[in-house]
Amino acid sequence: MSILENIRIVLVEPIFGGNIGSVCRAMNNNDITDLAIVNPRPTTDWDDARKLSCNAKDQLEARKEFATLEEAIAGCTVVAGTSARTGFYRDNACSPREFGQIGLESAKDHKIALVFGREDKGLTNEELALCTHIIQIPSSEHYTSLNLSHAVMVCCYELFCASETFQPAEEKADEADSEFRERMFALWREMMIKTEFTHDQKLEHMMMGLRRIFSRGKLTVPDVKILMGLAKQSIWVSEQWQKTIKDK
Amino acid sequence: MSILENIRIVLVEPIFGGNIGSVCRAMNNNDITDLAIVNPRPTTDWDDARKLSCNAKDQLEARKEFATLEEAIAGCTVVAGTSARTGFYRDNACSPREFGQIGLESAKDHKIALVFGREDKGLTNEELALCTHIIQIPSSEHYTSLNLSHAVMVCCYELFCASETFQPAEEKADEADSEFRERMFALWREMMIKTEFTHDQKLEHMMMGLRRIFSRGKLTVPDVKILMGLAKQSIWVSEQWQKTIKDK
Repeated sequence: MSILENIRIVLVEPIFGGNIGSVCRAMNNNDITDLAIVNPRPTTDWDDARKLSCNAKDQLEARKEFATLEEAIAGCTVVAGTSARTGFYRDNACSPREFGQIGLESAKDHKIALVFGREDKGLTNEELALCTHIIQIPSSEHYTSLNLSHAVMVCCYELFCASETFQPAEEKADEADSEFRERMFALWREMMIKTEFTHDQKLEHMMMGLRRIFSRGKLTVPDVKILMGLAKQSIWVSEQWQKTIKDK
Repeated sequence: MSILENIRIVLVEPIFGGNIGSVCRAMNNNDITDLAIVNPRPTTDWDDARKLSCNAKDQLEARKEFATLEEAIAGCTVVAGTSARTGFYRDNACSPREFGQIGLESAKDHKIALVFGREDKGLTNEELALCTHIIQIPSSEHYTSLNLSHAVMVCCYELFCASETFQPAEEKADEADSEFRERMFALWREMMIKTEFTHDQKLEHMMMGLRRIFSRGKLTVPDVKILMGLAKQSIWVSEQWQKTIKDK
């Protein structure tokens, strides 16, 4: 079982069905599946929720509903509330990144919960008092109020990154070794001479420039092959041109 | 001028007005203000855009519109395209976190751009070819397709974090020093004896437990005052109780 399955996202009295759907999608993008809703509103637009959940309709349908926050977090060790405001009980918050480490460590062996408040009023002091941690998402001092699904996205993203589940796309092509690179530089040197791009005096200076340009990132074997092919062709054209001149 | 003002968010042919509005809000939450839209669709629901932009209506109205991606990124040094897919041209992508550092470094002196594709088809290979960097957002191998505004949120969040603009809420109260803490522990020791909570043999063991519990996080001066007050009151009650017994 994946550690991420031990993470429960708890929404307290969310107003907009669309946000609930977007939350499901954000969770699904990060392999987090357990959604709980506290005291769902009778006015919730579930059609909107389904629409915005996209490929995460299963998560939406599998949601658990609870009358109170206490019931939604029962059995969880770490319980993190999110808050944009600061003040009494709300200082000493941790960042989503810090919580990514803390939460994941606890989720190895226990169920944990992340609690998100209402779109308009967030969590009450009484609800925050049930939390072991407070997460404050970095945001502009001019506008700290995040969309509910954006707040969930940032927290899930940090937990997902911390889980190191994700394997970034890697360059599959092999990196070129020095001997292969030097064969390319020799061809480029020849190209500079044959095309009469530069004269002897400036040649080594230009070569240093080229070496610098081509050393800013890794060069793969296919990269070097392209660069060699281009030089060879240019050399060939220059030789044809020289012949034409001589033939005249 | 803030470095973040040098960052342009470019949306290529977005389909849903609601997403454009949500993007504005996400940008505003992270002090990023420059929005460009490439080839806006005549069918765009701008009412929806305004509704979902919330407090970021100014950003939405100040958007720039361009016919082509080339025009939208003209003048930008670093141009980062986002892609969920991998493959030719798309390998060697960087994470949003890595790009946070790279992008911000360049934004110190130059305009940079982050480019996001259509909701259904992303960016074309020709559009990615105009980019100096490719950002791949970590996501579930089962579901890599992020909502447009979620993708923008994660990238803006990483740039905002890298800018270190945000000052987390800090505990304003002073941390208690050892002498003050020891006065508290002495009172708790007295409370344990006076309430007859524990007998001599176990007392030091219990005290070690308490010291461990109260050392898991920083204790501030107000924290220690609460703990001292509680102990004093409990000692007082115990003394009253002892008197009652004697008086009987």
